[in-house]
Amino acid sequence: MSKNGNMSDDNTVKTSMVTCTAPVNIAVIKYWGKRNEELILPINSSLSVTLHQDQLKTTTTVATSRSFEEDRIWLNGKEEDINHPRLQSCLREIRRLARKRRNITNSDFDVAGLSYKVHICSINNFPTAAGLASSAAGFACLVYTLAHVFGVEGELSAIARQGSGSACRSMYGGFVQWILGEQEDGKDSLAQQVEPESHWPELRILVLVVSADRKPIGSTSGMQTSVKTSLLLKVHGKPQHCYTSIPQSKCLITHALQHRAECVVPKRMEDMIEAVCKKDFSTFAELSMKDSNQFHATCLDTYPPIFYLSSVSHQIINVVHRYNKHYGETRVAYTFDAGPNAVIFTLEQHVPEFVQVIKHFFPSESNGAKFIKGIQVNDTILSEELKQDIGLEPMSNQISYIISTKVGPGPRVVEDCSQHLLGSDGMPKKTH
Amino acid sequence: MSKNGNMSDDNTVKTSMVTCTAPVNIAVIKYWGKRNEELILPINSSLSVTLHQDQLKTTTTVATSRSFEEDRIWLNGKEEDINHPRLQSCLREIRRLARKRRNITNSDFDVAGLSYKVHICSINNFPTAAGLASSAAGFACLVYTLAHVFGVEGELSAIARQGSGSACRSMYGGFVQWILGEQEDGKDSLAQQVEPESHWPELRILVLVVSADRKPIGSTSGMQTSVKTSLLLKVHGKPQHCYTSIPQSKCLITHALQHRAECVVPKRMEDMIEAVCKKDFSTFAELSMKDSNQFHATCLDTYPPIFYLSSVSHQIINVVHRYNKHYGETRVAYTFDAGPNAVIFTLEQHVPEFVQVIKHFFPSESNGAKFIKGIQVNDTILSEELKQDIGLEPMSNQISYIISTKVGPGPRVVEDCSQHLLGSDGMPKKTH
Repeated sequence: MSKNGNMSDDNTVKTSMVTCTAPVNIAVIKYWGKRNEELILPINSSLSVTLHQDQLKTTTTVATSRSFEEDRIWLNGKEEDINHPRLQSCLREIRRLARKRRNITNSDFDVAGLSYKVHICSINNFPTAAGLASSAAGFACLVYTLAHVFGVEGELSAIARQGSGSACRSMYGGFVQWILGEQEDGKDSLAQQVEPESHWPELRILVLVVSADRKPIGSTSGMQTSVKTSLLLKVHGKPQHCYTSIPQSKCLITHALQHRAECVVPKRMEDMIEAVCKKDFSTFAELSMKDSNQFHATCLDTYPPIFYLSSVSHQIINVVHRYNKHYGETRVAYTFDAGPNAVIFTLEQHVPEFVQVIKHFFPSESNGAKFIKGIQVNDTILSEELKQDIGLEPMSNQISYIISTKVGPGPRVVEDCSQHLLGSDGMPKKTH
Repeated sequence: MSKNGNMSDDNTVKTSMVTCTAPVNIAVIKYWGKRNEELILPINSSLSVTLHQDQLKTTTTVATSRSFEEDRIWLNGKEEDINHPRLQSCLREIRRLARKRRNITNSDFDVAGLSYKVHICSINNFPTAAGLASSAAGFACLVYTLAHVFGVEGELSAIARQGSGSACRSMYGGFVQWILGEQEDGKDSLAQQVEPESHWPELRILVLVVSADRKPIGSTSGMQTSVKTSLLLKVHGKPQHCYTSIPQSKCLITHALQHRAECVVPKRMEDMIEAVCKKDFSTFAELSMKDSNQFHATCLDTYPPIFYLSSVSHQIINVVHRYNKHYGETRVAYTFDAGPNAVIFTLEQHVPEFVQVIKHFFPSESNGAKFIKGIQVNDTILSEELKQDIGLEPMSNQISYIISTKVGPGPRVVEDCSQHLLGSDGMPKKTH
């Protein structure tokens, strides 16, 4: 086949555009501690629940064109540095796989499309204030979209992992485990679906978005604020002391992390997978709470210590335990990532009452109907006994709103071309 | 020697009264986890600093008289149940030692004085709000006073330990270690002075008393409030899940505690003792902070989790780390026990500035000159650079006051009879 053979058609077609969406995931067995910083290989397996994209998703459009002069990226309306190392890892890996795939098909194959530059545009449908790990959805969406643009199929979670560790879990819907793996090159450190999103329809999720009542000032805090404004910086600004192998001299938790990885997590993963498969809510809930607490304990045991839980988080934790105690069974669970916002798991039947409990103990004066976003929640009345058993003084205006959601599917291709974030000129549309 | 021999004089003398004082101690290597609940044997050694009694002390008067019909105890003006098991342990042990001692001297010896009932009256010179471990000073003072009443000499810390573990460390001044011990009967689980109070005169201590801004209500919280009101209840109400061997089924930290006890503490004790001996402030400070953080991490990793650190505590921790960072050396350390109040260690030369830092970042609107209690602290002016480097938004009215103190001596007999807390009728004086 000559170089100017039947692939010349393909060359013109390659000015293509693909838009995809990807979900946020919430770990219930937490990932922290890396054995390889560069490849993002964890020291323990983890397990997450994929949240529904009706409420929380990243949308990414990737365009390739012979006319593009360089790779470019826009995140939430702002152009960012394409040379970010983890972004480069993902681009390089996808292009390498695409090349490999074509070489297998035909070693003489023209790979011109692959040498085209890409324009990437990505937005989240949830505010940064929600404190959710946007980098996971962001890198999952990027890798999924790039793969579609370059015609790469198959296992992509190991590539997403190299963008942001937890991004590999956002490559699947439902209940997803990220298997630790054993190989040095990380090829077996992959995400795998444990159960699909349809498995446990009664399971419901509430994101309690805590008010940012106190703005830190000064240079150090200023930087901390700025890291929240972009996906790339967010990855840079990630609490490395928590998610990272900590220098032994700096922190005694290295031992504890090792211990956790070797002795605690393997059993917890087993128990958690069994709980998910059996839809055993109370086991699922208790393991989630314990693992969240252990994560935050680890952060506190670093030096200097890191606090993600605020007094509002503490109060949410107390409310959950007292609510469960009132009923003599575990009906509600919390989990917290690197921030004060709670992610609550409960069963559909308990949602109205627990939301009412939150409204009662965290009254919001100004927000009214907008307090609940997402899946509708009916009003209900709390018994005096329940209020008394919880018995905490209400904290006003400390929770901004609740996102009511459920378990959802993995990344999707958006077929409707009007949804592309890039115009035919390859530049971000003004509306975004 | 007949029963009515020359000891009859002694019998009349035995209507005696002794008043002693004992200090509070603050652990810098924390004690938690027991290997024997009954004897209060710890799973790791610990090390504390004895605070000066000019600022913080318990005073106890013990009277014995043939006319007393039963053992009785008054704590901070209120009669309490003498049958509290740990109180009984101390009384029984002291009486046993006294009897043994007399039997050695003369096996025919009349021990009538020992069969007399005791009246005990005890007060603290610091408010419960200070959140300091009053049970340590309380039991140390009780044992020390009983020993003087019954003429018992020698090692008393193993008896105080049976009242409240950390009480054994309040039996000595200066820097005190509580040695874990190996024996099953706990005879070698003793406190020992590492250095006397005169060893490090530059070392200064500030107790930052955090405001109780939020009163929990309801039955559970109500109980928690009531346990703070008496020494006995305080011992009962102690966070057993933290200081105690935790049921394996309930809490994964058991492993972590064991690990800490075996792998972390032995080295830390060695390093801490060396730092104290050498007066190496930065090592002393860093070990103190790390050990405090590890303690609170453990509390968070219990199930359900326990929070002692409030947002104010977090802010104090941040201020300390940023203050040290500004100077590029560790000038100030914090440690926290089972509550939000901070105990700060620093050197005399840094006290005025650090107090000014606290006044700046925790302004108190109403308290003025009374903000500092105890050893006088001179005013000073903070540089703008320092304020900017700390760079946190001030939290108003969150610290009630500061107790300014230093390392102090162990228990003392009060020679001035007018200081007895019991009148000649053996009943508490009205003034107390």
